[in-house]
Amino acid sequence: MKGEFYSYLETKKYQTRYRQEFITITEDVSSAIKNSGIKRGSAVIQTHHTTCGIWINENEKNLIGPSEEIGYTADLRHVLDNFASPMHDYGHNDVKHDGNKYGKRDTHLCEPDENGVINECINGHAHAQALMIHPSITVIVEDGQILKGRWQEILLVELDHDRERQVSILVCGVR
Amino acid sequence: MKGEFYSYLETKKYQTRYRQEFITITEDVSSAIKNSGIKRGSAVIQTHHTTCGIWINENEKNLIGPSEEIGYTADLRHVLDNFASPMHDYGHNDVKHDGNKYGKRDTHLCEPDENGVINECINGHAHAQALMIHPSITVIVEDGQILKGRWQEILLVELDHDRERQVSILVCGVR
Amino acid sequence: MKGEFYSYLETKKYQTRYRQEFITITEDVSSAIKNSGIKRGSAVIQTHHTTCGIWINENEKNLIGPSEEIGYTADLRHVLDNFASPMHDYGHNDVKHDGNKYGKRDTHLCEPDENGVINECINGHAHAQALMIHPSITVIVEDGQILKGRWQEILLVELDHDRERQVSILVCGVR
Repeated sequence: MKGEFYSYLETKKYQTRYRQEFITITEDVSSAIKNSGIKRGSAVIQTHHTTCGIWINENEKNLIGPSEEIGYTADLRHVLDNFASPMHDYGHNDVKHDGNKYGKRDTHLCEPDENGVINECINGHAHAQALMIHPSITVIVEDGQILKGRWQEILLVELDHDRERQVSILVCGVR
Repeated sequence: MKGEFYSYLETKKYQTRYRQEFITITEDVSSAIKNSGIKRGSAVIQTHHTTCGIWINENEKNLIGPSEEIGYTADLRHVLDNFASPMHDYGHNDVKHDGNKYGKRDTHLCEPDENGVINECINGHAHAQALMIHPSITVIVEDGQILKGRWQEILLVELDHDRERQVSILVCGVR
Repeated sequence: MKGEFYSYLETKKYQTRYRQEFITITEDVSSAIKNSGIKRGSAVIQTHHTTCGIWINENEKNLIGPSEEIGYTADLRHVLDNFASPMHDYGHNDVKHDGNKYGKRDTHLCEPDENGVINECINGHAHAQALMIHPSITVIVEDGQILKGRWQEILLVELDHDRERQVSILVCGVR
């Protein structure tokens, strides 16, 4: 297929609610593709963060949770926390400050708050778990839709605690 | 390089034969690139499934198996099953049906068969292992070929039992 | 956005210095984007290797090391080696040669050296760890820059011992 090249970019914000939450964003990606008018090409879905990512899988509650809502530990929480436990020691969590003068982590720090305290997340495990979740995923666009199978859903994966997250969607191709 | 934008899409079917099988599909991707006539650009290789994916690595039999053919457990079967064992309990596998009225999984079910039985796969581990294998991978196309190193092969990875799988290949760029 | 389609390709070489080293290459990707003149589109960053890959995360020393320079084991070395230990037995490492006539690995071998010895790396663990690190990652380009958050850095990840590595960067889009 030959045609004029179009590109379209949207950035969306999400408020996550739990540690290690999987949020289905398939509809938002579909909507960006529709807004682009592009019929054939690709969509790149990318986070702006280091402790959250993108995954494509089935959004069945026993797999992904939220554990806080189903009332027991979801399968992937078992697996991810077994891979890199939030209970282990991480040098990344050993933040140097007035009360921890020999802390190993003395760079990559947020600004201190009005009391001089650096409020860093204790999130070494979340960076490690991000080895598995993707910083970006590209999906094929055909007939103006995501080319995907029956059970495939696009998921934003929060690996850290609840916070605001941004996801950008770039659609490129022909109309 | 400047030029008219072309895109080309092919979908291929594969019959997998074993649980956790790695199938080399490099030639099929090369063939799609050739069919596209595109000389410079990219190829997105994407599965339609949630318990199979794409990986690029060396297709050496001790790494990838099939274990059933080499007669011992391939290295990556050890590693993947250690990460998410098929022997563990998964809520995803606890399917609610007439004989399991309190099963945790009461959604995302296949249609019952002619006897009213829901033949769901016991595949929680395969979804978890899919955290590692990619739903899609993009490779660079240069001089009408996949840009790749000596040992790199494109692999379709079956994480579930044997079944039919679909892979789509989108090639975009200039001729 | 509509416009003429441009593509630009650069290949860079890196000399890694340690086993399991994370090298920040964000500036090199930015430079390739600048060289391309492309303002909106995507950049595909791809390795040519099977025991090294690309990741996007924070380049904080306690997370990524190098352990050899910080003087203790970096967090991700703990996690990656726990996932696939360099101390385990791998069939991939059991190379068949004159002194190991029943070695399991009898294919995918390098050429023998002048003494007839095959100098294969003992790197089964590095192939397994490559399940997590990406053969390629696509990032969005906007306003002639990588679209990324404050802590996101593009990292070349050496999973094997020190050696020379190649990374190709394809930038596609409109100027």
